[in-house]
Parts: sequence; structure tokens; C-alpha cells
Amino acid sequence: MSALPELWTHQPRSVLAFRPGRRVADIDTNATPGFRGEKAGAPELQAERNAAFAELQEMLYANGKAAGDHRSVLLVLQGMDTAGKGGIVEHVVGAGSPMGIRYRAFGVPTAEERSHHYLWRIRNALPPAGLLGVFDRSHYEDVLVVRVHNLVEPAVWAPRYDEINAFEKELVDAGTTIVKVAMFVSLDEQKKRLAERLERPDKHWKYNPGDLDERQLWPQYQQAYQDLLDKTSTEHAPWHVLPCDRKWYARLAVTELLIEALTAMRLSWPPADFDVEAERARLRAL
Amino acid sequence: MSALPELWTHQPRSVLAFRPGRRVADIDTNATPGFRGEKAGAPELQAERNAAFAELQEMLYANGKAAGDHRSVLLVLQGMDTAGKGGIVEHVVGAGSPMGIRYRAFGVPTAEERSHHYLWRIRNALPPAGLLGVFDRSHYEDVLVVRVHNLVEPAVWAPRYDEINAFEKELVDAGTTIVKVAMFVSLDEQKKRLAERLERPDKHWKYNPGDLDERQLWPQYQQAYQDLLDKTSTEHAPWHVLPCDRKWYARLAVTELLIEALTAMRLSWPPADFDVEAERARLRAL
Repeated sequence: MSALPELWTHQPRSVLAFRPGRRVADIDTNATPGFRGEKAGAPELQAERNAAFAELQEMLYANGKAAGDHRSVLLVLQGMDTAGKGGIVEHVVGAGSPMGIRYRAFGVPTAEERSHHYLWRIRNALPPAGLLGVFDRSHYEDVLVVRVHNLVEPAVWAPRYDEINAFEKELVDAGTTIVKVAMFVSLDEQKKRLAERLERPDKHWKYNPGDLDERQLWPQYQQAYQDLLDKTSTEHAPWHVLPCDRKWYARLAVTELLIEALTAMRLSWPPADFDVEAERARLRAL
Repeated sequence: MSALPELWTHQPRSVLAFRPGRRVADIDTNATPGFRGEKAGAPELQAERNAAFAELQEMLYANGKAAGDHRSVLLVLQGMDTAGKGGIVEHVVGAGSPMGIRYRAFGVPTAEERSHHYLWRIRNALPPAGLLGVFDRSHYEDVLVVRVHNLVEPAVWAPRYDEINAFEKELVDAGTTIVKVAMFVSLDEQKKRLAERLERPDKHWKYNPGDLDERQLWPQYQQAYQDLLDKTSTEHAPWHVLPCDRKWYARLAVTELLIEALTAMRLSWPPADFDVEAERARLRAL
């Protein structure tokens, strides 16, 4: 069920792993690392792997629900506008059951959120036992947009990398597998995608004039992403660097990252905590 | 996009509507009201209608997100064990995007929930603007299991029908469309489905010996459902009576109920709240 399809020449987990010294500026956003298939075959493979993911996700849910398994999975999606976070949510995560998925987007903090520590809203949204949590943006916004826009002093944001590492260590120790994906598109590809949002009336709602202001800060964001990867790709919660100019590749890759994470949990269907034979006999009589 | 497929001879909304005088004991749980198609054609039709639902659901989300539309939809699923609530969540609701769906199951109340009014946990789980909320069981448990098991005195549960009607009126007035579905299987079909859960190790986790205790209380539940339908099928939030022995029919029917509810909201893609031409020019320059 979860064997890596042969079109993958390398495990996505390892080929996409951020390695020290890697430069954000050098990422080939159009590449398809570890994959030797083509776009034409992607839909079929995606459907097949969606099904494998869905079964594992149900198993995770079953264990949380019926076997007292306290473990959970947290998918963290970070990326510039149009990187394709929404598409991952819809086409990858969406293959699972709404029952076992907890999605949360982190936008500009509300007044209440601002009155708390920056990790407060994050802690409130963590997946409980058996669930797959999905963060569409995350606590990393507090070292990205917050830093680039000077919303707080460097003395305030600089310690956050260590704080985040400690926070994630705490989650991992408590049984959460964290899958962190940094999604990168090229400036050109972003331009195309923003233009499409401006062309199509059914996409206007996804466009925000502020997106262009962010676009002008590209170099600053590149630097902030560089520091983020350098400082928060840990053994317990490594970053994956995902080229996203080809949506079909990005979706296949995240599907495999989730399948790998779930497979590593060595899940199986929870054994009955009741006497199956006795229940069969009772049922026959009713 | 949302025209009713011709295999439907009647609008599910009207053919499934609970009508005063209807007896729960007389429901033909094996019927396929309003539908003249067969099981063989169901998967294809389901896929087609899932897509229509998904587009409308995205439109609802877009309006909540980008157009200040405060409306939402709440699907309430009630039914005996094995009626197929989970299947509806997975195969119908699951066609939408996790971004716009908020699922919540209501089981035995926690200590904290018990310390509050029975509607407290319900209010906390209501869908915000633009979302489709799904209640897997609901506030109706407080006039079903609570009543059948005498968890509180009749003097306590009896006023709840009116309270619930008032509560739902409040929601509807505030912009929530409530789609209530009471799911009915026959005693025989339930026996088959429970037996399957006992046969298949991948289904053991869905089985609970308590399910058989509930099964023995079938007549009491039938009566509780009868009163529920008689007393809480209102103009603002009518009940739909769904025969569920045929899962494929139940799923097609709930899909249409959701499509009808969303269509009645006369949704369209939110218009741009910015100058599209000006943004195009800005983008070209960047």
C-alpha cells in the first residue's frame, strides 16, 4: 500500500530535506527532485497515492479514537503568495476524511491573538490524538512577515527561532510528527499566477493588492526564509524544500511526505478491546 | 452546474421533507424516493455531483472570506449506529475543501461540557461565515439518548424541543442555512452492518459493545425520533427523512440537499474590491 511508486528515484523525505549550506537563492523552483515521471501521468498517480494516504489517515484516526493512541501529525505549509498552499490543502489533504483533519489558516492576528504570546493561537490549534492538523501558514509567520515588515524589533523576533525549536521539540516528544514544507515559486511563476487571479473573475477573491507589496519585498523574504531554514531545520522537525512551479509535482511530493510520515508511525488497525466471538453471538440473538 | 440530474424525478428537498402525520415506524428504509436510477450508475453520478457541490462550497467560502458575507451552512446528521453518518462525511462532505469545512462529532459529553447548558458545546462548534459546518450527531442527542436512557427527568428534556426550535431560529435569522437529515436503517440492515464490523479487523474500531445495548432499545428510539420529527421540523429548519439501507442512494440524496441549500443562497463569485485594471498594470511593472 505505502511502497514508494517506482517513478520516484529517491525518497521525497530525503531528496527534499533542507541541508545546511543550501541557499534559498539557488533553489530551482521548476525542478522535480527525485521524480522521473511526467505531468501526463500525474493525475493517475495522484489518485492512487491519495487513496494510500486516505487509508493511512483513517488508521491514524482509528488509533486515536479507539486505541488510546495519543499521536498526531501536523503538516506545516509555508510559502509566498501563490506558492500553492491552498492546492495542497484541497488536492492532497482533501483526499482524507473531514473527520480526521483539522485545518487552520493563520492570517493577520486578531486583537485577541495579539494580546497573547505569539504561540498562543498556535497551541490552541494543535491536532488532538489521531488527527492530522494542517497549518496554512503558521508560527513561522512570526519570523517572516513580522520580521520583513519590522512589526517588532529584532531583539524580539531574533530569539524566536530557538523558542520555536523548543516548542516543536515539546510537540514531538508528546507524540506529534511534524511535517514542515517550505514552498518556493519563482518570481516569474508568481507573476503568471497573480495575473491569472486578475484575469479570472472566479479567482478575484484570492487576489489582494497587498500581494504586490509583498512581491516587492521578495529579496527580504528570501533572506528571512534562508534564516528560517538555517535555524529551524532540526532533527526532530526538519524542513523540506519544495519546488512549486509545477503544481502536479508539488502535490505528489507532499502526498509522499505524508505517506512516509504515517508509515513511519507503524500504524495498524486497532485490535478489538472486546470479545469478538461473544459479540457475534450476542448480535445473532438480537 | 446545479440543475438537478434527470435521474431525479422529484427534488430531494421536497420528497424527503418530513410531513406532519408521517410515522417513523412506516418509513421504508430500503426505498430510493424521487430517484429512478440504479446502483450501477451511482458512482459516476456521485462523482459528477461531488464536483458541483465542491464548486458551490468553494463559492460559499470565497464569499465569507472576501466579500463580508456572514452566511454559513450547517449540516446536521442524526441516526442510529451504522446509519451511515461517517460515510456521508467521507464521501459527500469530503468532496469539498478542508479549508471550508468544519466537522464536529458529539459523543458523550465531557465533564466540562456537562457543567454547561446542553447547547453550550453546540454553540461553540457553529460554523463561522463562509463555512460548511457538519454535526455528526448534535443537540438532538439531548432529546434522544438522554431521553431513552432517562439521563434526566422528562421535566428537563421535554422543554428542549421548543428550546431547540428557538435556538435554530436564532441561527437561521443570523444567516445559517440548516440542513437536518434524520437517517434511518432497518433493524435487519443494522444487523448486517454490525456483523460486518465484527467480521473485518479493519472495522473493529468502529464497533462498540454498547451498540447492541442501543439496538435493544430500538422501539424507544423510534418513539424518540417520532417526537423529535413531530416537534422540531419547522419552517425555518425542516427535517429530511432519509432511507439509508442503500448507502449509494443516501449519499446521492445528501449531496443534492447540500447543492439545493447552496443554490438557494444565490451565490456568485465575489466581485473584486480593487481596481482590476490598475492592479494588472502594477503587476506588469513588477
